[in-house]
Amino acid sequence: MKRSERLVAMTHFILDQPRTLISLPYFSEKYGAAKSSISEDLGIINKMFQHEGIGYLETISGAAGGVKYIPVFSEDYSRTFVNQLCDRLEDPERLLPGGYLFMSDILGDPETTRNIGRMFASAFRDKGVDVVMTVATKGIPLAYAVASYLNVPVVIARRDPKISEGSTVSINYVSGSTRKIQTMVLTKRSLQEGSRVCIIDDFMKAGGTINGMRNLLKEFNAELAGIGVLAEAEDEEEDRVVEEYLSLVQIVNADDRRSTIEVRPGNLLENI
Amino acid sequence: MKRSERLVAMTHFILDQPRTLISLPYFSEKYGAAKSSISEDLGIINKMFQHEGIGYLETISGAAGGVKYIPVFSEDYSRTFVNQLCDRLEDPERLLPGGYLFMSDILGDPETTRNIGRMFASAFRDKGVDVVMTVATKGIPLAYAVASYLNVPVVIARRDPKISEGSTVSINYVSGSTRKIQTMVLTKRSLQEGSRVCIIDDFMKAGGTINGMRNLLKEFNAELAGIGVLAEAEDEEEDRVVEEYLSLVQIVNADDRRSTIEVRPGNLLENI
Repeated sequence: MKRSERLVAMTHFILDQPRTLISLPYFSEKYGAAKSSISEDLGIINKMFQHEGIGYLETISGAAGGVKYIPVFSEDYSRTFVNQLCDRLEDPERLLPGGYLFMSDILGDPETTRNIGRMFASAFRDKGVDVVMTVATKGIPLAYAVASYLNVPVVIARRDPKISEGSTVSINYVSGSTRKIQTMVLTKRSLQEGSRVCIIDDFMKAGGTINGMRNLLKEFNAELAGIGVLAEAEDEEEDRVVEEYLSLVQIVNADDRRSTIEVRPGNLLENI
Repeated sequence: MKRSERLVAMTHFILDQPRTLISLPYFSEKYGAAKSSISEDLGIINKMFQHEGIGYLETISGAAGGVKYIPVFSEDYSRTFVNQLCDRLEDPERLLPGGYLFMSDILGDPETTRNIGRMFASAFRDKGVDVVMTVATKGIPLAYAVASYLNVPVVIARRDPKISEGSTVSINYVSGSTRKIQTMVLTKRSLQEGSRVCIIDDFMKAGGTINGMRNLLKEFNAELAGIGVLAEAEDEEEDRVVEEYLSLVQIVNADDRRSTIEVRPGNLLENI
């Protein structure tokens, strides 16, 4: 195999397995090339990944060493993406009764969810995340996108137990927005004790739902590694019950009666 | 930029945008290379994508021409993947009351869902799919994985309307397994008339839920392009209400009292 051909194959192979340690001998055998050539190839790939703003190859030296692809969405791309997202969301036609925003089209677009996943995976890359957690339904595509770049599994809490999932642990929590007592369940065998969990959701007002997930973690003796929400909305009547989180966008002054809305970048951009 | 560097950048760029037409002049400008060089690069990429079993580049000639990456999971990979999946599922510990199977760990693994997505996207690649549809909750990651390789949006039907989604269309359907009348809703503005829809779900017994989605399509004057389910289970007491579908695996003789289960490849492998 020529170097040019090998580079195409290796680029795909590496992109397909983020955060997975791949040893030089493995590449060497797979592509029938000397370790010195593979080493040069990896140098080119690393250089170009950084040039393209999609991350870098981490080199682990020693006998059990190799390379790992760490996806990082560059600051430039992040800013451009978030600003475009703000523009798309800042459309009065999206306003729904109660200050909610129609976002299903954005959440339904795999390319957009992939980019959102890249941004959160970049932001949480040093948090030692073992699992990404969300609650059904709309956060699910985002949770998978994040998990896919962090190369960890997803667990999904539900608002109702289902017969096809086995025994569950359930908690009650107070929804911040409606002040109603709600239930959240998670299948027993889906989360291991001591796991470091990254919570992802699409929308946060007072933060009751996210707080519910946090309480669920305690039941499983799991640790919180980080919280990421696509959109946070201000709500003057509520005290926010969640303090440390990253948001991609912030919805301010959403008023469905006056048909006005303002969407600006969330705090994630400040933390790049 | 050297050819070797350009190949890494182009490979990433193309993989990131399946089924998107990219013109030669675009590449030529982006990477500052002559069209003849780009053309050679694309030849190498096409050859290697086929060699790696991940699809091919379709060339569209003429003034508005260019290349499109069509993801196709090779027959070899498909067989290996499905057989491994059967092995993982064929574990009596997965049996839940009522002949259900615990699959949350498999559905929670982004690499596995990605491969499932690749397989269905390959199978439905010539069906002119405009949209992938599923019903909350467990089919969602699969629907996104398929949609991501087909480069189309996802719409999610729900069993309960939510205030944060706007007006909805709702239908009633009979669940094949429980014979209960159930409701399914879809947000009005999420699906356009005439769309060709691929239905994806995680599990099918009699097919009542899938049939519900099919009825929902009629309400939207949308067309069915194909049906894909991860696992189908035989149920002797039921007549299957869905006939044409592709399944990845087939669960036979699941018996939670005797703790026996057999899982074999579904009909998708016969249709590669």
